[in-house]
Amino acid sequence: MNPSVPVRAAVLASADYPFSPITAPIKLDQNESFADFPEELKALALERLRLLPWHRYTDLHAEAVCEAVARHEGWSADGTVVTTGSNVLIALLIQLSALGGGRVVTVKPNFALYGLDAELLGARLTEVPLREDLSIDTAAVIAVLQGSEGPAPHGVIYLPRPHAPTGSLCPLDELERLALASQGWLLVIDEAYHHFIEGPDARELARRHPHVVLLRTLSKAWGLAGLRMGYALASDAVARQLRKLVPPFGVSVLQTVCAQVALEHPGYVKERVAQTLRERDRLFAALQRHPGWRPIPSHANFLLVRTPDAAQAHAQLLAGGVLVRRQDRLHGLQGCFRVTVGTVEENNAFLRAAGLAG
Amino acid sequence: MNPSVPVRAAVLASADYPFSPITAPIKLDQNESFADFPEELKALALERLRLLPWHRYTDLHAEAVCEAVARHEGWSADGTVVTTGSNVLIALLIQLSALGGGRVVTVKPNFALYGLDAELLGARLTEVPLREDLSIDTAAVIAVLQGSEGPAPHGVIYLPRPHAPTGSLCPLDELERLALASQGWLLVIDEAYHHFIEGPDARELARRHPHVVLLRTLSKAWGLAGLRMGYALASDAVARQLRKLVPPFGVSVLQTVCAQVALEHPGYVKERVAQTLRERDRLFAALQRHPGWRPIPSHANFLLVRTPDAAQAHAQLLAGGVLVRRQDRLHGLQGCFRVTVGTVEENNAFLRAAGLAG
Repeated sequence: MNPSVPVRAAVLASADYPFSPITAPIKLDQNESFADFPEELKALALERLRLLPWHRYTDLHAEAVCEAVARHEGWSADGTVVTTGSNVLIALLIQLSALGGGRVVTVKPNFALYGLDAELLGARLTEVPLREDLSIDTAAVIAVLQGSEGPAPHGVIYLPRPHAPTGSLCPLDELERLALASQGWLLVIDEAYHHFIEGPDARELARRHPHVVLLRTLSKAWGLAGLRMGYALASDAVARQLRKLVPPFGVSVLQTVCAQVALEHPGYVKERVAQTLRERDRLFAALQRHPGWRPIPSHANFLLVRTPDAAQAHAQLLAGGVLVRRQDRLHGLQGCFRVTVGTVEENNAFLRAAGLAG
Repeated sequence: MNPSVPVRAAVLASADYPFSPITAPIKLDQNESFADFPEELKALALERLRLLPWHRYTDLHAEAVCEAVARHEGWSADGTVVTTGSNVLIALLIQLSALGGGRVVTVKPNFALYGLDAELLGARLTEVPLREDLSIDTAAVIAVLQGSEGPAPHGVIYLPRPHAPTGSLCPLDELERLALASQGWLLVIDEAYHHFIEGPDARELARRHPHVVLLRTLSKAWGLAGLRMGYALASDAVARQLRKLVPPFGVSVLQTVCAQVALEHPGYVKERVAQTLRERDRLFAALQRHPGWRPIPSHANFLLVRTPDAAQAHAQLLAGGVLVRRQDRLHGLQGCFRVTVGTVEENNAFLRAAGLAG
């Protein structure tokens, strides 16, 4: 260790989180909802907050929010773990099951945090490439588990469903085979974008397999990225252990009240998801007319677009006032950028900036 | 690993956080501020929040709050790390410098989380007993560092100043000697209760020693325990590495705005601290007249009280409507409970329940 910066070598060697803020009139780079939390719900939350004490600690484990989530999801409150964003849970689940010689198995390309957290926490990381069609190669993931060395290989498997940043959707029967082949591991299915799939989510699978954990968030379809609330749906036994790692009294009274208000009024989410799917289909169809760009079919609120030159595409769109996210440094995504489905007007501006009729 | 609960043995073996909620008319058990965040500041924060978007992610590393904290503290923004409560930082600093064979050195009795987090994260834990007078035995801490085995002993030292739950205050010259003797370690001084000391805090010391980190919180003197905001004041070099472990976009827009409003209007804190010290002195003097209880001199917003039987004392106070916190299961604190300094009326109720003139 460097005496003046007494920090572990794995942290010193790790890259910063890959994000540099860029300002643009139209922000389609972070897969946020196209609309704010509804004004009347905001007013309701703020009025409740005005009447509550702020100088008192909140619940030890956000019990009131857990119960509201559990009611909404048809899950047990004891199996629900709420934290300030689901990205908090990504690190905690590695701490739960992969520290000290355990492994983190995931896919590539991928959301950056699974790999970053594995490195930072000193877990061995294996990233299984997606298939050529950008689907998750569950057979290859199973082969990695079966090929793991040591007396009792263990750790955490992270799979997003739908996958980010491609938008591809892993079939549930493939996940079922993986669940059967991953006893002794924690199988975490990140469902951040589950609202945007048409068809069943993974809750039935998770109910049958106590080692399966689902991650969900209020940051996407709920329009509450600024609230920082996420949760795990797990078996009661896994949740009980996970809770030991969650900072006590960790969810603020502000987050508690806003989450409760949202979960009491989920109707707006459905309407917005329907609009997002309509707009996603419209963007996809329009992009197919582009002479050089190719959109990838998506089950989320964003589209991955392959271009001859991502830097050029990004700059061209930014010149038109539209910010998208470059993904071309990720494995297999040469030339790709990702665009969030915005409002009708924002999507029109994006198409115009892309040189297509808006 | 148990195949159906694939969790590390250290987590399975670890105790739950030691807290069971009890309802009582007068709550003096969690060292919260005796008063809520001022009504006009609450209104200001809520009005700002009404006008801000909630569906957008916040700053990557709460940069705006870091700058407000840095201005308030006379610190560099690059050396400031803000998280959702300083208890988050306790776990992250262990991850920064003590995972994988490192050590956590602290004192006992102590705030429970240093030891719990060390166990959960698999760091080797050494707890140095307080001296007979409940002061921190810095010489014994230095002896532990010098006696540490291995080629390059390293890890994190956690010392609270003032100490909780005793309220004792480690002299700065003793901390200076410890800082000089702890090169290669991270020396973390938890200043959660620093507002209540009369005399200098540890910022000057931390400026001179880049391996010293201070932890502070809005949960105590600021009257914002429900907000969940804490921060580290560190050298720029340590803060840059620590930030890699902090969940990105981790502080909500609600917490951001409320912290900004508080930091722009710090005047109320000073008035309240003065009242707390007056009331602490009054409680201390009154308790000295108790036939069987003995208060310990305190530099914080609470008093540790030694009694012949903590269970009896706790029950007696609760029967009088007053909730305090038993501390008698902690090392050396047989018969002790801790009482937070409340409002004048709450303190009178506490004294009456204790059988003293209120």
